[in-house]
Amino acid sequence: MADTVHMTNDLHATMLDMGARARAASAELARRTPDARTKALLAMADALKAAEADILAANATDLEGGKAKGLSPAMMDRLALTPERLDGVADALRDVAKLADPVGAEIARWTVPTGLDIARVRTPLGVIGIIYEARPNVTADAAALCLRSGNAAILRAGSESLQSAIAIANALRAGLKQAGFPEDAVQLVQTTDRDAVGHMLTGLGGTIDVIVPRGGKGLVARVQDDARVPVIGHLEGLCHIYVDADADLQKAIDITVNAKLRRTGICGAAETLLMDRAVAAQMLPAIAAALQDAGCTLRGDADARVLIPQIEAATEEDWRTEYLDAILSVRVVDGLDGALDHIATYGTGHTEAIITENTATAERFLADVDAGIVMHNASTQFADGGQFGMGAEIGIATGRIHARGPVGAEQLTIFKYLVRGTGQTRP
Amino acid sequence: MADTVHMTNDLHATMLDMGARARAASAELARRTPDARTKALLAMADALKAAEADILAANATDLEGGKAKGLSPAMMDRLALTPERLDGVADALRDVAKLADPVGAEIARWTVPTGLDIARVRTPLGVIGIIYEARPNVTADAAALCLRSGNAAILRAGSESLQSAIAIANALRAGLKQAGFPEDAVQLVQTTDRDAVGHMLTGLGGTIDVIVPRGGKGLVARVQDDARVPVIGHLEGLCHIYVDADADLQKAIDITVNAKLRRTGICGAAETLLMDRAVAAQMLPAIAAALQDAGCTLRGDADARVLIPQIEAATEEDWRTEYLDAILSVRVVDGLDGALDHIATYGTGHTEAIITENTATAERFLADVDAGIVMHNASTQFADGGQFGMGAEIGIATGRIHARGPVGAEQLTIFKYLVRGTGQTRP
Repeated sequence: MADTVHMTNDLHATMLDMGARARAASAELARRTPDARTKALLAMADALKAAEADILAANATDLEGGKAKGLSPAMMDRLALTPERLDGVADALRDVAKLADPVGAEIARWTVPTGLDIARVRTPLGVIGIIYEARPNVTADAAALCLRSGNAAILRAGSESLQSAIAIANALRAGLKQAGFPEDAVQLVQTTDRDAVGHMLTGLGGTIDVIVPRGGKGLVARVQDDARVPVIGHLEGLCHIYVDADADLQKAIDITVNAKLRRTGICGAAETLLMDRAVAAQMLPAIAAALQDAGCTLRGDADARVLIPQIEAATEEDWRTEYLDAILSVRVVDGLDGALDHIATYGTGHTEAIITENTATAERFLADVDAGIVMHNASTQFADGGQFGMGAEIGIATGRIHARGPVGAEQLTIFKYLVRGTGQTRP
Repeated sequence: MADTVHMTNDLHATMLDMGARARAASAELARRTPDARTKALLAMADALKAAEADILAANATDLEGGKAKGLSPAMMDRLALTPERLDGVADALRDVAKLADPVGAEIARWTVPTGLDIARVRTPLGVIGIIYEARPNVTADAAALCLRSGNAAILRAGSESLQSAIAIANALRAGLKQAGFPEDAVQLVQTTDRDAVGHMLTGLGGTIDVIVPRGGKGLVARVQDDARVPVIGHLEGLCHIYVDADADLQKAIDITVNAKLRRTGICGAAETLLMDRAVAAQMLPAIAAALQDAGCTLRGDADARVLIPQIEAATEEDWRTEYLDAILSVRVVDGLDGALDHIATYGTGHTEAIITENTATAERFLADVDAGIVMHNASTQFADGGQFGMGAEIGIATGRIHARGPVGAEQLTIFKYLVRGTGQTRP
């Protein structure tokens, strides 16, 4: 443990020291070549496997602690590492190593009448603070994406997985060292003291450039409320499927069932079905039957319950609930405008979809819905950086600043302008 | 005054109401076409000229107040409007009307193996809060850039220019109304109560998406410290000129004199000259003489004072000072690495320049300096959105999130992903 961060009794001083080390490491990182960063990522993957025994032992400690705390079987399963799962984590690092390195890429270049040659090139953000909850693999995933984009990472794991996270972070740092990189490019907060999060949210004396929270609603809300530094976060994914009058019924059935039930626990899962009144009587019973046959519980508004009489009534609260479970709320709306109104009121800016064969209606939906991802005739479960061809992601941003939608390596960069002159002075 | 915002005795309620109106207007704005936004901008310019008498009368009130407060002649001059200056403000609006409308522009588009067609398109940020100081023209400039980018604006003017700002905002709102746009796309805080700023910094119940401070160090620092919403701000422009061993002496002289003295009060003015030790004896005396002949006071480190003996000593404080005046600090450094170290320590991330005929040295400087704008053989006074061909700007951002360098209409947008499918479900 002492390898990772030297702890003192003074949390504030320790945290400031982490920030200063991260800042120094980030300046160093930004100067390395893309190829060097690739090698460091591969060394981190190897080091992770080399430390397998230590990591599994630390994980056993976390699992004992979880048992004593009475964590649910689902939570215990998310916490557990096995040699196979660790292989998966190392493979994920190797996948990130294969991603294009965004740093230094020229985004645009032009010449102005004064003869100045102006280029906009990508640069790292600097130091990224990542605050997350249970899954131990996030330690490796987040560190890898930060490194791919030339950023130093300060990681704060959940208390349940702290020992696993420490062992993983130590392995990653060993890999960095082996590759000749500053170990402090990856640092992990070594205490469960909740004040550590508060310190991070102040920016550690200007050394943290951005905070990325990954976790439940409570965590993200706390971070967004208290942070004095910019936050790239996602709140909930309260995703809607709007089935339009011009929908193909079979597509509507297939997409709705997939969007709700493929995996109910992910943020891209659909939570509300909006049914166009014009075809509700023809289509809703068949869509509802397919959902119910697949094990989904439906809750409907008064109009929906006329067509699916055996279901419970949906309350105002239902329209605001991200179930993350096999439950779907159903509302009959007055066409596209009704759907747009509902989504504007209850949507969280994550992913929204329309099912229709009418291109004009689809294009209006795509243009008018204010969300990170807007889909036509596709399942909301595709809301994922990998599915978008962007590689690994650190989350789906629902804010309106810096990045929206999947946040991959490219979204963890900013840019600077390079101006090449031949002696110009400004008149 | 009652036209612009209905004030109540309850500032908090009034501010929340402004936020709600801005949010509603922003949803409306985002749906208008680029052409409609252009027409609205032209209508705003016409309305501004039509309200000339009202605006000049309000400005006379501000000028009287300024006189009573004992504002400096320079401040009084910045505050004063004339028919000619108002023509300039209206022309600036017409120039913004000519800028390409960024909203809806496709930034990237690709197809993934599942057959999904993915497009990243620009969207407005939403509601922008702008907090600024004396110059009355900022009210019109900021409102215009927000409208060009489809954003609603909540403006908070300095107390010295409040009456002028109210009159200008009323004119802009009249123009919006005439063009069939929601007047609440431009709102101005109608009170000098400083608590209004505090309310804005909390985000007005989630209705402000980003805050842009424009003004002195004190204002920007307060905003960055207290804001609970993202900030696009610039701190100081502590810009450096590094004259390398391979510099062309005449270029070094011309650029340094221009960078320091063309206009001393702008953020892109140079504040420190870093002189390569290898050629300091040959070059520094000539550069110093040219600066002094042009009326510049120099302050130097010990090595510089050996070569320019009659100048005052520069203290640690000088390296940290944005003079905004005809004063330049001079330091002799050990080549490129010495310059990079000095800039990393004292730079504010605004604009940095190298003078050299050695391309390899220049490219290392461009790559390694961490600033919004990095220049080779050009004056730092070119740090300006107009000079970059980006049109009007709201400032030069020195932060590391969302935008860096000149913030024009395009930088006041974010993006969303449009996913066009043919019925895909995720396996």
